[in-house]
Amino acid sequence: AANKTLLVLPGDGIGPEVMGEVSRVIDWMERRRSVSFRIEEGLVGGAAIDAVGTPCPDETVAKARAADAVLFGSVGGPKWDSLPFDQRPELGILRLRKDLGLFANLRPALVMDPLAEASSLKADVVRGVDIMVVRETVGGVYFGEPRGVEKAPDGRRRGFDTQVYFEDEIARVARVAFDLARKRRNKVTSVEKANVMQSGRLWRAVVGEVHQAEYPEVQLENMYADNCAMQLCSRPKQFDVILGDNLFGDVLSDLAAALTGSLGMLPSATLGAVDPTSGKRYALYEPIHGSAPDIAGRGVANPCAQILSFAMLLRWSFGMEEDAALIEAAVEKVLAGGLRTADIMQPGMARVGTSVMGEAVVREL
Amino acid sequence: AANKTLLVLPGDGIGPEVMGEVSRVIDWMERRRSVSFRIEEGLVGGAAIDAVGTPCPDETVAKARAADAVLFGSVGGPKWDSLPFDQRPELGILRLRKDLGLFANLRPALVMDPLAEASSLKADVVRGVDIMVVRETVGGVYFGEPRGVEKAPDGRRRGFDTQVYFEDEIARVARVAFDLARKRRNKVTSVEKANVMQSGRLWRAVVGEVHQAEYPEVQLENMYADNCAMQLCSRPKQFDVILGDNLFGDVLSDLAAALTGSLGMLPSATLGAVDPTSGKRYALYEPIHGSAPDIAGRGVANPCAQILSFAMLLRWSFGMEEDAALIEAAVEKVLAGGLRTADIMQPGMARVGTSVMGEAVVREL
Ligand SMILES: CC(C)[C@H](C(=O)O)[C@@H](O)C(=O)O
Ligand SMILES: CC(C)[C@H](C(=O)O)[C@@H](O)C(=O)O
Repeated sequence: AANKTLLVLPGDGIGPEVMGEVSRVIDWMERRRSVSFRIEEGLVGGAAIDAVGTPCPDETVAKARAADAVLFGSVGGPKWDSLPFDQRPELGILRLRKDLGLFANLRPALVMDPLAEASSLKADVVRGVDIMVVRETVGGVYFGEPRGVEKAPDGRRRGFDTQVYFEDEIARVARVAFDLARKRRNKVTSVEKANVMQSGRLWRAVVGEVHQAEYPEVQLENMYADNCAMQLCSRPKQFDVILGDNLFGDVLSDLAAALTGSLGMLPSATLGAVDPTSGKRYALYEPIHGSAPDIAGRGVANPCAQILSFAMLLRWSFGMEEDAALIEAAVEKVLAGGLRTADIMQPGMARVGTSVMGEAVVREL
Repeated sequence: AANKTLLVLPGDGIGPEVMGEVSRVIDWMERRRSVSFRIEEGLVGGAAIDAVGTPCPDETVAKARAADAVLFGSVGGPKWDSLPFDQRPELGILRLRKDLGLFANLRPALVMDPLAEASSLKADVVRGVDIMVVRETVGGVYFGEPRGVEKAPDGRRRGFDTQVYFEDEIARVARVAFDLARKRRNKVTSVEKANVMQSGRLWRAVVGEVHQAEYPEVQLENMYADNCAMQLCSRPKQFDVILGDNLFGDVLSDLAAALTGSLGMLPSATLGAVDPTSGKRYALYEPIHGSAPDIAGRGVANPCAQILSFAMLLRWSFGMEEDAALIEAAVEKVLAGGLRTADIMQPGMARVGTSVMGEAVVREL
């Protein structure tokens, strides 16, 4: 992997802290497994606003394009909350998704056995849950035009957004979901509000067409988003792959993550298309948790999601399956050994901070 | 209340069955409490499509306008799933909300003590949960124009909807939420995606203005919808009143309901503005559960949500607080006595069907 370049974007809040623990893992890889790859660093989010006045500098986008994969921390915090809409830290991640064409966000919601008791749901309801949410990330209401806040002719303020999907945008993310389902338990639950939204009608139709033409052997189920939220809460084991648009995917993937009880443990990947000439596929990896400003700088954040995001990156972007599996196994062993950060603390376990957790993972390696 | 008119719209699926149990309660009221009011019946949803070819006949709307309150069952089912978008059964409820200006949907998510164990969440996480979701119901992406599925100039299909809110639409539903909070635990959590949606920015701004100008003593918290879904799942007791737009309110109220573990128990009210001249306020009451086509006609549906919707109607539209409280107490007693329909069945309890449950409520009365 010596020819590979990794762009690291720590961002805000706990981002830099948890990214620090990934550095330890990388050090270990260089020492013990004599692998190395080029590491670049970049600015994003509030950190970029403070340094250069914009949440996603052109230089960061250029570095991301040049890199083989991006490891992202998290962005945002109260410090930047009152900035105008077109300068908010979230634009860091939104612009990267859009400019690199990262259209498929893969969010696993996995209950690791030692953590089944950490969930707010009953252990027997969540034990064994293994859901993959596939969320569309460059379309829909997040980017649709026209949008704005303006004065209507009668003087009233009016805020509006456009929810819009083209058929090919739906089809390509549906393929990602069906491909994943084939390697998993062969079931896709596609989520929309086709009963009230026109974009939802098209979503359901196109997913059905792709299914029939290309994946007839995968089980496809259509479900309204409100019902899906209910079902996730009451019977999460019924799901394998959940497919949703940018907005429903956002809410439902967070819900799926929350029900595992281990938000601080969950990585994610956002993938673009494979470039037909270079064979390269842009990809960004980030933990599911946000910047958690309330605990930032206190050394108590759980670094596992960031470390597992790095493992996902090794597997998917660098083809380093063996190293990825080693890291994942090390994290599980640390948990089985009883160490817990505050977010996943359970009675009888040993509560530790960010760096002790990171060190323990390296020790297990 | 003899001068009051009640419009009953059973609709589809389990709607007619559970409405039948309300009739028993009404019979009891007439016999024992010598109250009476005029009862009209009407067609809505698939039942209306089958009878007169449209999901919300003008006659139904006219009856609803003439009535003092509407008791609604539920609409929809596989039989009507392949109908064109502008003929689907859901238009029954959507048109009633819109034409009567029923802009505030109140959805309590209450954990009754005997049912705390029925939740998929741990009993100590849900015991005592008492959330009121206030959902805007005549605006947003449900009705915004333009909307449609069309061929773009390049031949691709394009599905689009408009998410739009005017400031006064936000302010009036916010007032409903703040008024309720004052009578409850004095806290409103307003939910949007102000970090990615322009309508969300306006939503947050207007709610903040109403708060500062009219309800400064109520605690207001702004929360992103994805985070709210997480928090509902992990720490539901933090919430008192949740305020959301039509779409977020739909998903989050269903989630809040699901986490109580007793969907078949939950009523809801949808209120319009008070008419300044007549003093009349249009209002529609309906259970939170849908038409449940899978169990329809089998006599196993839980009639409690429909009965409690009727109690809510008596209290809010007919000013019959005492009768409402009697009915609610009767339902609680039946549960405490150990009767359970299938949806809330627990070990050691007696499983009964729709009519035994309804009879038991009348007996307790
Ligand atoms: C940071 C924000 C723009 C973002 C989103 O809404 O997509 C976040 O919630 C996420 O899911 O990555
Ligand atoms: C029936 C349907 C149109 C409706 C909605 O989405 O509003 C339902 O989910 C509800 O919440 O009442």
